[in-house]
Amino acid sequence: MSDMIKVAVDAMGGDNAPGEVVKGAVEALQANKRIFVYLTGRKEDIEEELAKYEYPKDRLEIVPTTEVIEMAEQPTTAIRTKKDSSMVRGLRMVKSGEADAFVSAGSTGAVLVGGILLVGKAKGVQRSPLAPLIPTRTGVSLLIDCGANVDARSDHLVQFAQMGSIYMEQVMGIENPRVAIVNIGAEEEKGNSLVKETMPKLKETKGIHFIGSIEARDIPEGYADVIVCDAFVGNVILKLYEGVGSTMIGMIKQGLMTSLRSKIGALLIKPSLKGVVKMFDTSHYGGAPLLGLRGLVVKTHGSSKAAEIKNSILQCITFTEQRINEQIVERLAQLSDEDTVSEDAATDAGEEQ
Amino acid sequence: MSDMIKVAVDAMGGDNAPGEVVKGAVEALQANKRIFVYLTGRKEDIEEELAKYEYPKDRLEIVPTTEVIEMAEQPTTAIRTKKDSSMVRGLRMVKSGEADAFVSAGSTGAVLVGGILLVGKAKGVQRSPLAPLIPTRTGVSLLIDCGANVDARSDHLVQFAQMGSIYMEQVMGIENPRVAIVNIGAEEEKGNSLVKETMPKLKETKGIHFIGSIEARDIPEGYADVIVCDAFVGNVILKLYEGVGSTMIGMIKQGLMTSLRSKIGALLIKPSLKGVVKMFDTSHYGGAPLLGLRGLVVKTHGSSKAAEIKNSILQCITFTEQRINEQIVERLAQLSDEDTVSEDAATDAGEEQ
Repeated sequence: MSDMIKVAVDAMGGDNAPGEVVKGAVEALQANKRIFVYLTGRKEDIEEELAKYEYPKDRLEIVPTTEVIEMAEQPTTAIRTKKDSSMVRGLRMVKSGEADAFVSAGSTGAVLVGGILLVGKAKGVQRSPLAPLIPTRTGVSLLIDCGANVDARSDHLVQFAQMGSIYMEQVMGIENPRVAIVNIGAEEEKGNSLVKETMPKLKETKGIHFIGSIEARDIPEGYADVIVCDAFVGNVILKLYEGVGSTMIGMIKQGLMTSLRSKIGALLIKPSLKGVVKMFDTSHYGGAPLLGLRGLVVKTHGSSKAAEIKNSILQCITFTEQRINEQIVERLAQLSDEDTVSEDAATDAGEEQ
Repeated sequence: MSDMIKVAVDAMGGDNAPGEVVKGAVEALQANKRIFVYLTGRKEDIEEELAKYEYPKDRLEIVPTTEVIEMAEQPTTAIRTKKDSSMVRGLRMVKSGEADAFVSAGSTGAVLVGGILLVGKAKGVQRSPLAPLIPTRTGVSLLIDCGANVDARSDHLVQFAQMGSIYMEQVMGIENPRVAIVNIGAEEEKGNSLVKETMPKLKETKGIHFIGSIEARDIPEGYADVIVCDAFVGNVILKLYEGVGSTMIGMIKQGLMTSLRSKIGALLIKPSLKGVVKMFDTSHYGGAPLLGLRGLVVKTHGSSKAAEIKNSILQCITFTEQRINEQIVERLAQLSDEDTVSEDAATDAGEEQ
């Protein structure tokens, strides 16, 4: 079992748990022989779902827990008090090394707080961002940060730029990824105080390919590989992406049903329309890892179905093999050694504003 | 000429000036006999464009100016130094009462700064927001603020909620408009510090129908009539709306050209697809007024073509007849009289956080 990737999966997390989560875990096992799954959650519920499928029983184990962290719970309180929950148990397995990764579709806030409290931030990391891939005309971009840690400082954004660059290089194989900061105009003097403070720091940050501001309008066109913003703005972007996409598709479909002519047309274009819909469906890109932790924690959509759970589990192979968090720690340490002088200068420049 | 609406139009503002601006002005004159247009800008350039059209010469006058404020100029400096620019001249005409309104497709920052410096904020107004209408599945919503004044305070957002409500009631005829604040989750404890501070204040604000948080995902579905946010977030929302929409439509069109089958389908669905594209094209909703000034200033898209310029000029009739800024002043005064006690309470609650 030496080259097995052991993934703890939160069987109780998300809108469609445990049904779709268990199904997704089974599909992941079937898709790749190197996957071993621990399902954390209520034993009877999980067994009931598992009874529906054929699966390799030597690569799945139930880790019975009694509690469930609900979506609306206050994250810190939930993580601290519900010690026998499927989420806390899964995170502890990563911490102890029993599992290589933890995948959950549960509350973003709780996964984030739990990741930091139970798995721990890696050395040198100030904040652990949630960084999903979003679809663009030319491929995908990394939107960093979309987590629950709002009110970021400029130093956080600089680290996000560094972590995001490492991710896009190592996981997505993009050479010299273009980094941009979300802003409301291309001109230097535009932006809120956070952006104005961060801009000069990003310009002086070595080891990243910073290309300046990106307006929200240009994000879907794929003008940057790493899109840096604070979590509030990132959340707005991620959710509006989904919202505009699904509303538009809904309206197009509705429009197509209004006349016989368009109904016939609709049948003919169905395959090509489906491709675009699929491309703009953020759930097809699997989960997003919390970057910069001492272990691998992957958050998937709360509304995940089996396919997304499966993809998120399979992604853990790449994340583990690429040693993404280890690389982040190594590179951050390297950069801070190299750059002590220029980083100090950048900090001073930021504070002067 | 007593019931004429006199609109000063910045003939040099925007990406397509003066050609499209002059064309739009002529179309507005042809569309409505109550419109009188002053075109501010370089006389020869305007005359050259005007020579292309037939138009009622007794309802158009050129106001010759020599300078132009460019998109990339620092707004305050530009407004202060370019006194003979098409923008400064137009704004001064509103201030002096020579014109009832000023319409410009020029730099948002300059229009905003110029509006405040030259026309002036109305009594009781803390900040003058730019509030465009955005398309939704069910109609339109007002996105307030999308201006260039970032880093808003909670008191500003409360006034935006009030002004936006008055606008949607008076101009759009929506009774008891639903007001929501942009947030990253529906739960009470979510949000950045600005949202957390504003939330209790909005709950206690009388005269508005506050329905709580709105996630960006739900904006295109039309869950709220007035969408309150600070200008940075508003800008991101407005521009991403346009970006996702146009990228998606572009990809759908591209997809439709890949096979003979889909090409035939495309011909059949063209009319219904066009309807959706048009609906999601924010430019069809004309310009956005700067609310809460001592006169009417309307900003249209920098990329405006004649149709949008025309719509923006015609909109000035409604804005003027509904006395939108006067109503804002009256209602704000009314509310502050009525609410002195509860507003103090709300302020205290905000400060305690």
